[in-house]
Amino acid sequence: MTTLTIEALEARLAERATAAPDQSYTAKLLSRGTAKCAQKLGEEAVETVIAAMSGDKDELVKESADLIYHLLVLLRAEGVALDRVLAELDRRTGQSGLAEKAARPKD
Amino acid sequence: MTTLTIEALEARLAERATAAPDQSYTAKLLSRGTAKCAQKLGEEAVETVIAAMSGDKDELVKESADLIYHLLVLLRAEGVALDRVLAELDRRTGQSGLAEKAARPKD
Amino acid sequence: MTTLTIEALEARLAERATAAPDQSYTAKLLSRGTAKCAQKLGEEAVETVIAAMSGDKDELVKESADLIYHLLVLLRAEGVALDRVLAELDRRTGQSGLAEKAARPKD
Amino acid sequence: MTTLTIEALEARLAERATAAPDQSYTAKLLSRGTAKCAQKLGEEAVETVIAAMSGDKDELVKESADLIYHLLVLLRAEGVALDRVLAELDRRTGQSGLAEKAARPKD
Repeated sequence: MTTLTIEALEARLAERATAAPDQSYTAKLLSRGTAKCAQKLGEEAVETVIAAMSGDKDELVKESADLIYHLLVLLRAEGVALDRVLAELDRRTGQSGLAEKAARPKD
Repeated sequence: MTTLTIEALEARLAERATAAPDQSYTAKLLSRGTAKCAQKLGEEAVETVIAAMSGDKDELVKESADLIYHLLVLLRAEGVALDRVLAELDRRTGQSGLAEKAARPKD
Repeated sequence: MTTLTIEALEARLAERATAAPDQSYTAKLLSRGTAKCAQKLGEEAVETVIAAMSGDKDELVKESADLIYHLLVLLRAEGVALDRVLAELDRRTGQSGLAEKAARPKD
Repeated sequence: MTTLTIEALEARLAERATAAPDQSYTAKLLSRGTAKCAQKLGEEAVETVIAAMSGDKDELVKESADLIYHLLVLLRAEGVALDRVLAELDRRTGQSGLAEKAARPKD
């Protein structure tokens, strides 16, 4: 059982972000700007979809980790605190099932 | 400051998953299988990319929340515990910057 | 054997684009702007990936048609003539196999 | 004005496909199977979306060419003739605007 929290993960990433670009993949990616960070997020999502469709659970674990990581990088590139995303998730998932149903599109 | 942890989020989703499909969006989506869950994840990633490129931070918050939510649904559809993904993230981000650099592709 | 050429397809789309938005899906989509057209393209690509991974060839045909169609709409939204894309394809695929190899990234 | 037709493009790709994988990017990609071809298609779609959102028309031309090319490769990987896709496009776009409207989803 890991004890990593999403806040701890964000703190690690914040530390990486301040490194020199040639010392950290995170810093290098951030130095290339939002479009590059968004591209990487999109690519990781494609790989996550393919891993799921392949039924390869080990690969799905790896690609999901890459996807979350690159989402955190993209949020940082845009100056959006993860806390805002968690609050949004809290708000949505704190709804009752019926409220959830009403708030979601039919498809 | 939200106190929602990723574990609490997963617990909420697990509760939803056991509801009747006509009572919960989560249960309904899961009932449609992995391909549909993967499709939704991919679509949310596209919307996250577009929100980031538009520079619309409120939209980026919402789409990021949707992306994380649908990733958790997809993991559940495939029977993969979120804990495995967090352990993978812990393993990767626990590396030093130099190890990170070595472990990542150049581009 | 269809006799539809890509030029004929573009001509049809151009005709649709001039219709009233409530009379044509194409006109309506264009009226919503580049971000919406790009979102649709991305979504169709996700569905094409999933159809291919599912091994459902009929679905792959349908999703590929949707993907090409939405690419043409996006090009129109950005005012880019399809002819430029075909010229680029001509240039690339007119290369010998060895030139192709040299011009492409290794992965 | 290019004279390249989509059929001529498919013929070129068919020729490439029969080359040795170390002599042709196309042959190499096909040798890696459907999942890899689908991944590349998805990645090119992400890059097309980003080029469109960036408003970079030269980049949009290049990425659109890459997207069409990788779609043709994916269809070949799955043994689906391009002709079927064109026939589907013909069928859909041959509809009147009103029929188009009725056949399309509202969003």
